[in-house]
Amino acid sequence: MTSFSAKQIADMEQRYRAAFINSLGGFKSVVLVGTSDTEGLSNLAIFNSLFHLGANPPLCGLIFRPDSVERHTLENIENTGKYTINHITEAIYLQAHQSSARYPKTTSEFSATGLTPEWLDDFSAPFVAESRLRFSVELREIIPIRLNNTILTIGQITGVWLPDGILQPDGFIDLESAGTLTCSGLDSYHRTERLARLTYAKPDTWPEVILK
Amino acid sequence: MTSFSAKQIADMEQRYRAAFINSLGGFKSVVLVGTSDTEGLSNLAIFNSLFHLGANPPLCGLIFRPDSVERHTLENIENTGKYTINHITEAIYLQAHQSSARYPKTTSEFSATGLTPEWLDDFSAPFVAESRLRFSVELREIIPIRLNNTILTIGQITGVWLPDGILQPDGFIDLESAGTLTCSGLDSYHRTERLARLTYAKPDTWPEVILK
Repeated sequence: MTSFSAKQIADMEQRYRAAFINSLGGFKSVVLVGTSDTEGLSNLAIFNSLFHLGANPPLCGLIFRPDSVERHTLENIENTGKYTINHITEAIYLQAHQSSARYPKTTSEFSATGLTPEWLDDFSAPFVAESRLRFSVELREIIPIRLNNTILTIGQITGVWLPDGILQPDGFIDLESAGTLTCSGLDSYHRTERLARLTYAKPDTWPEVILK
Repeated sequence: MTSFSAKQIADMEQRYRAAFINSLGGFKSVVLVGTSDTEGLSNLAIFNSLFHLGANPPLCGLIFRPDSVERHTLENIENTGKYTINHITEAIYLQAHQSSARYPKTTSEFSATGLTPEWLDDFSAPFVAESRLRFSVELREIIPIRLNNTILTIGQITGVWLPDGILQPDGFIDLESAGTLTCSGLDSYHRTERLARLTYAKPDTWPEVILK
């Protein structure tokens, strides 16, 4: 076993520490966020900071570092209030990763990476046509986090598009069958292999397997 | 393809919607959070809401629903300012899931689930001895999210314990080799299989594979 103290972490070279601390939190959601600016120019960016915030109302959070390429996405969300979340599969993960390159604001990452914008149900932000699981989000609140100048946006899920056959009778969406990937650190992409779904835990019994 | 409107989501039966919306965000981190109350009684709870917030200072966020079993964890964090994060492997995922059962406050989930508390470096919150990747966290800020009465705690990482052989030369931690699991929805546990680590994206080149 190896251990690191607070001082050893503080003394790490900056990029080394970024890779190290980004790894520590475990496997993460990795998605493409689609937006449009007020002129209609579409933007696409990869995020590994999406998280579930609540089901009723259906809310999700997204963290922005204001000094990064993500600022185009944040500006568009502030200006239009709308964004799309698109899951990433093995077929598009190279293009998805490439969307994090620092393209100029006038370049759409859709054309730069070869992904296809798609508009669904008159929602004004673009979806990724190649993504299999997608949802639309409307901004509800922006919370500045003063400790490190990051920004938390909270959005409400207003529409969901799923491939057939992955929604289970109890509402669970089988992301693994949909081919959704997960990521770790800043740059590692992974498939998943289910161990099991487990029954709701109760004090006097042991959990049972619902689905292998 | 199947789609769901905002109204269809709002009309879902409550547990169905919880499973559905919890699945949408993609694969998540799943960890055990260890705390002690002011009398020294240890508490352990499983969370799938841990997220990376920044590397310098090293910060992580955790979301609490105040009406849930997680309240013992939140009370302990508010009272002591200290908690531990413990990654979950296949060897302990049943016990980890079982920690979410509604045990009375006087029952330690360690003894109830058969996991072993361990104290490292005089940190006052307990670690899980069976976990392979662990870190200590000190509370920095509590942010109430008024939209849905959840609570975001932000903590600073003050110490890290890793198994040998998983730290790469650039600071990346190979969670897959450490056996760290991911989860989806409320109750599905998954191993991972790496596709690749990719090089930092630049506008004029395509990403290359660092590690398969």
